[in-house]
Amino acid sequence: MLLLTFYLIAITAEAMTAALAAGKRDMDWVGVCVIACITALGGGSVRDVLLGHYPLTWVAHPEYLWMTAGAAIFTALTARLMRHLHKLFLALDALGLVTFTVIGCQIGLEMELPITIVLLSGMITGCAGGVLRDIMCNDIPLLFRKEMYASVSMVTGGLYLIAIDQSFSELTSMLVPMGVGLTFRFLALRFNWQMPRFVYRDDWH
Amino acid sequence: MLLLTFYLIAITAEAMTAALAAGKRDMDWVGVCVIACITALGGGSVRDVLLGHYPLTWVAHPEYLWMTAGAAIFTALTARLMRHLHKLFLALDALGLVTFTVIGCQIGLEMELPITIVLLSGMITGCAGGVLRDIMCNDIPLLFRKEMYASVSMVTGGLYLIAIDQSFSELTSMLVPMGVGLTFRFLALRFNWQMPRFVYRDDWH
Amino acid sequence: MLLLTFYLIAITAEAMTAALAAGKRDMDWVGVCVIACITALGGGSVRDVLLGHYPLTWVAHPEYLWMTAGAAIFTALTARLMRHLHKLFLALDALGLVTFTVIGCQIGLEMELPITIVLLSGMITGCAGGVLRDIMCNDIPLLFRKEMYASVSMVTGGLYLIAIDQSFSELTSMLVPMGVGLTFRFLALRFNWQMPRFVYRDDWH
Repeated sequence: MLLLTFYLIAITAEAMTAALAAGKRDMDWVGVCVIACITALGGGSVRDVLLGHYPLTWVAHPEYLWMTAGAAIFTALTARLMRHLHKLFLALDALGLVTFTVIGCQIGLEMELPITIVLLSGMITGCAGGVLRDIMCNDIPLLFRKEMYASVSMVTGGLYLIAIDQSFSELTSMLVPMGVGLTFRFLALRFNWQMPRFVYRDDWH
Repeated sequence: MLLLTFYLIAITAEAMTAALAAGKRDMDWVGVCVIACITALGGGSVRDVLLGHYPLTWVAHPEYLWMTAGAAIFTALTARLMRHLHKLFLALDALGLVTFTVIGCQIGLEMELPITIVLLSGMITGCAGGVLRDIMCNDIPLLFRKEMYASVSMVTGGLYLIAIDQSFSELTSMLVPMGVGLTFRFLALRFNWQMPRFVYRDDWH
Repeated sequence: MLLLTFYLIAITAEAMTAALAAGKRDMDWVGVCVIACITALGGGSVRDVLLGHYPLTWVAHPEYLWMTAGAAIFTALTARLMRHLHKLFLALDALGLVTFTVIGCQIGLEMELPITIVLLSGMITGCAGGVLRDIMCNDIPLLFRKEMYASVSMVTGGLYLIAIDQSFSELTSMLVPMGVGLTFRFLALRFNWQMPRFVYRDDWH
């Protein structure tokens, strides 16, 4: 399956970027592996726990845990090289975002949930892993502050649901929204697009 | 239903105060909506996940998500006005606290849980949303440091369970504890009541 | 049951050390009790939610909540004395780690999960409570930075699974790995053993 291939590439890439984030906080190797697994598999886990969709992906497929932990340790060992692959990581991370989103929407559709929840299932799958990583690293989640990450996920998921509704072929329904989402993400990175911010100060709270 | 009306007012109010908190951390509009939904609906979600009570409220009623996100965006757009409504927000927030608590206790009773867990179900519903908001905003949860928030929830839930046990009418059982809880909360705010703190310092941990 | 005795000692000890951590952040008594319950019972709760293993321990046994909250308040009241018991706490904390690990593995075995997940179930039970405590206290989780905590849990769980596989008696299968784990933990504390760290800096992320 094409989507499974994308999924495996995506969790590997997420694990590698998470390992670099852990290295910036001087974590030990256990921390690096845990952060990598949580970032790569946490989005799907949050979705499954919220929707009561058991067993979780990594419980049914423990090999994904070994893959992400292995990718994280490999990254820690070769970190000097990794820094030259910055753009490749950004591309793989974007591929992960749109892949996770489509997979999340598919699970929502299988569970016959309301359409809002199907879209949200996609967005949670795409974005929650990064939020968990930022909480574990004691940052305000990046998702809430920049990068149009959630917007890319929403556009991808929305187009996918429209395509499914229009009975396009499964392949078209997946690949076109993913392509649009990737393009959107690359443009956002290239031109530093940001969502408008809400800046508020007061003296009473 | 009176309780449903209170609930809808409460989640709207929680969403609006959460939006202001997000604005103080310069979040973008996505962040504002996410924080608002988590604050307004997160307490009930934590309860449902811990008790295995599926589907979650917002999965069964996606319209609540639109309501909270809409209230958050409205708040961001009219923030200059909102700052004059500080006292109204505090009142609605207190209404939310006692309403959530009673709803949480009702769900615990329906599930025929032990009485300790019924009370805790009420307290989690009332308080956990604010804790999640503070974790997302990278603060030490306010709940743990001031405001007698949890105590108000405990008193409200405890009185509600006593009233149910004494077979008072459903309306009396709800409204009297909620009234007592609201009064307690307003007095705590007015006179700056605080729980005693435990301050501890050492050199070895 | 010997394991139940160890478990009760362990959750009491975890509650007491958590109360001291809460005191260092000037939390009020509600915060102290909440942090204590989350630290002592949170590891098992995270495991049960991730595995869909309902009802959670403290829902089935609300008396554990009273025990941990009581231990936390007792600790707050007698904090001056507690500081002289530093080494006793470290020993009880280590006992908790290996006990939680074995209990988590047992639950994984009962659910007939893959062996990787059984081991992980033990490690989550042993370690996640402390991670939740650190997130609530707004720290980067200690687990990820020092103390070989996760490694002790992994060794204990791994030996337990080997012993079960070799059909040793239930008592031997439990006590020998727990003894090895305790020894490992004490040596790590005594000689300040640490996992190698992954330190990474860059200018692009």
